[in-house]
Amino acid sequence: MADYVEGKRPVIEAMRTDVPLKKILLADNAKREPMIEDILRKARQRDIPVVRVPRDELDQKSARGSHQGVIAETKPFPYVGVGDIVGNANAYAEGHGGRALVIVCDHITDAGNLGAIIRSAEAVGASGLIIPNKRSGRVEASTYKSSAGAVAHLPIAQASNVASTLDRLKKEGFWACAATEHSQNELWDVNMKGKIALVLGNEHDGVSHLVLEHCDMAGRLPMMGKVGSLNVAQAATAFMYEWLRQNW
Amino acid sequence: MADYVEGKRPVIEAMRTDVPLKKILLADNAKREPMIEDILRKARQRDIPVVRVPRDELDQKSARGSHQGVIAETKPFPYVGVGDIVGNANAYAEGHGGRALVIVCDHITDAGNLGAIIRSAEAVGASGLIIPNKRSGRVEASTYKSSAGAVAHLPIAQASNVASTLDRLKKEGFWACAATEHSQNELWDVNMKGKIALVLGNEHDGVSHLVLEHCDMAGRLPMMGKVGSLNVAQAATAFMYEWLRQNW
Repeated sequence: MADYVEGKRPVIEAMRTDVPLKKILLADNAKREPMIEDILRKARQRDIPVVRVPRDELDQKSARGSHQGVIAETKPFPYVGVGDIVGNANAYAEGHGGRALVIVCDHITDAGNLGAIIRSAEAVGASGLIIPNKRSGRVEASTYKSSAGAVAHLPIAQASNVASTLDRLKKEGFWACAATEHSQNELWDVNMKGKIALVLGNEHDGVSHLVLEHCDMAGRLPMMGKVGSLNVAQAATAFMYEWLRQNW
Repeated sequence: MADYVEGKRPVIEAMRTDVPLKKILLADNAKREPMIEDILRKARQRDIPVVRVPRDELDQKSARGSHQGVIAETKPFPYVGVGDIVGNANAYAEGHGGRALVIVCDHITDAGNLGAIIRSAEAVGASGLIIPNKRSGRVEASTYKSSAGAVAHLPIAQASNVASTLDRLKKEGFWACAATEHSQNELWDVNMKGKIALVLGNEHDGVSHLVLEHCDMAGRLPMMGKVGSLNVAQAATAFMYEWLRQNW
């Protein structure tokens, strides 16, 4: 998660979308105008400490130079381990006829896409989402808004290697299924019954060759028009609901 | 479509995403710097006339006061009639085992959502999309980007009344199916075989009561998590691919 949210509107928006905040730093010479009053009121309602600091300190902490006298420090996002997600999925499968879904993102870079995928994953009852810890979008303050708050309810893990994470999930009884336009099979012809690790690829390159080799199966969304592809978050949603349909 | 695109970057972006432009107005005192050169080069490649005008004229045309010496005038978006979309759909159905899909938007207001819906509709082979001519998002220059260019390939009509448009489609042999969380049926239990008019609701209120009364059937996406709803464009994509699956 981004460590700091700066500026009056962004700080208000962060509180409105329930981004977990550690504290708010307010310039000691800030004027008591309506937006500052709003920040103080919202912080009080949420038990977030407000600390008055010299404006110089804000200037130093500011990444964009747009703090307007206020910076909020976010709590680190509580990533879980891959093992936690596996445990979660196994418990879910027991109560849901053997079905469980884990989403594995192979370097989704756009924060908005990641948020939209998190929202859909939470909606279908996924047990967690795994993202690489490098060259990947990660959970930021903006993810609370782009996921409509779902990020607070879905366990998310960071992994150093997508391929070996898939091998681990396979050992735990998951079938690894890639969503890729290069597949010969329509998604509804792919058997997604049971415990599935759904692999989603990068916005530009799709699922990488190496990661594909570690998948048990792959499916594509038929493209019937002139534009060749869907947005990855849209495609992900169609796959997730197809998993739910097959397991309903 | 918005009549004018103003500012150097927006004008470059408009040409890059193939927004149909009538002409480009350039301040007669604009300096020949790299971005202006880029605009002139791209305009030449695309046969878009560039007209030098006094800067005052740009100031008068500018809605945002951010023209930076350049404004592009867009061509009006070529909306078709509802009858054209019906004709399109009937021709498509003949060649595709009787299936055809028309998307009816019941006051989708967000331009980004409308663009994403257009992209998915074009991808599943929809025959057209119908939007209200009031209190609704419409095709703007930004739709070319948000739909990834699909807006240039999907027939789009404006209608004055959604309910009576549905009645007309029903007379033409369509089944009107609403996507609504208030339905008792999961989407895969709804019979979407054949010619379907898929009705999508407003971001806040969903499909209106009046419009629902004109639908033959309705389906919902099961929500298995704590967050109560999906983004309308995500939900639309899941419905569209369910239509395609049932008709495959």
